[in-house]
Amino acid sequence: MQTRRKRIELQGSAEMDVFDVTADVDQFIQESGVEEGLLLVFTPGSTAGVTTIEFESGAVSDLKRTMEKLAPRDAEYQHNLRWGDGNGYSHVRSALLGPSLAVPVEAGKPVVGTWQQIVVCDFDNRPRRRKVLLQLLA
Amino acid sequence: MQTRRKRIELQGSAEMDVFDVTADVDQFIQESGVEEGLLLVFTPGSTAGVTTIEFESGAVSDLKRTMEKLAPRDAEYQHNLRWGDGNGYSHVRSALLGPSLAVPVEAGKPVVGTWQQIVVCDFDNRPRRRKVLLQLLA
Amino acid sequence: MQTRRKRIELQGSAEMDVFDVTADVDQFIQESGVEEGLLLVFTPGSTAGVTTIEFESGAVSDLKRTMEKLAPRDAEYQHNLRWGDGNGYSHVRSALLGPSLAVPVEAGKPVVGTWQQIVVCDFDNRPRRRKVLLQLLA
Repeated sequence: MQTRRKRIELQGSAEMDVFDVTADVDQFIQESGVEEGLLLVFTPGSTAGVTTIEFESGAVSDLKRTMEKLAPRDAEYQHNLRWGDGNGYSHVRSALLGPSLAVPVEAGKPVVGTWQQIVVCDFDNRPRRRKVLLQLLA
Repeated sequence: MQTRRKRIELQGSAEMDVFDVTADVDQFIQESGVEEGLLLVFTPGSTAGVTTIEFESGAVSDLKRTMEKLAPRDAEYQHNLRWGDGNGYSHVRSALLGPSLAVPVEAGKPVVGTWQQIVVCDFDNRPRRRKVLLQLLA
Repeated sequence: MQTRRKRIELQGSAEMDVFDVTADVDQFIQESGVEEGLLLVFTPGSTAGVTTIEFESGAVSDLKRTMEKLAPRDAEYQHNLRWGDGNGYSHVRSALLGPSLAVPVEAGKPVVGTWQQIVVCDFDNRPRRRKVLLQLLA
């Protein structure tokens, strides 16, 4: 098995960013020359997550609002009481969404739908640079 | 690494279908002759998702009800206001559940529990044919 | 492609356990001698799940409370009405969180953040031994 990897960096704003990384994935696969395999997107860190969505401002806004409903930013969190960093909601959202997404690669491209983009969500409550790992197995 | 793939098609009803695809996965692995590897189930498109559940009508109904609680069909969605297609809830549910599931393969079978089935959820609000990609790495 | 696997066992308490299995994953990779590849954690069974979280008692407690909000233990579930085993909430939580996590391996280690641990959640309502499958592709 051949393994290739690439790190990309994203600048979070502290307000639940949703980053479309599909073009980064496309470019990474293209540069590798791999035609068939598996592409993994992984977010090291416990306040981010990966999924897919139709990347248009409406659906992205709806996802943000739903995350606010599931784990509200201003609710009381035991994490905050212990550590005082105020990002208890970030940890819960990250655990729910998950840090990992595997996508099949076919004919040199990720097999996503036309209206389906690969997105990294930064849930943290302070602006930070995020490293995201792309790994390609072939 | 060897890569095999197969597409299966499902007919959605627009009412949150939960399709048990375990038999399709079993058959695909059996046809491949692969004994050990990794099986990926992926739903191209931004209104579906993959997970596992005990596939009996009670648990399936409970999952549907919970999805309705997390992202109600008739709530207000920015996606709907922008595009008028009324499936904002479908996009949110799909992003939450995720489009991808990796399952280990051992002795020619997916390593799932006896009461654990691999399911594809169609969240869209119109009847549509769904293509699902099975990919086997060995 | 080379495939290695290992099963680990966990003892659930019936009260939503969150087990940190990062050390097991580390040891498994180290024993294998693999430097680069993909590590899969999979929970056979339909009442468990896998994700990552900062494994400290506050964040773990917050995740438990959120799961109780999303799928309350004492709500009415069709699964319970049909089967009488009272673990309808366990099935829903398991389907939402998902049974599978893929993590890249680099330099003989899983590429997780410093404060990010790999955790298995046991959602069942009776104490039971859990087998968890670790699979390493290289």
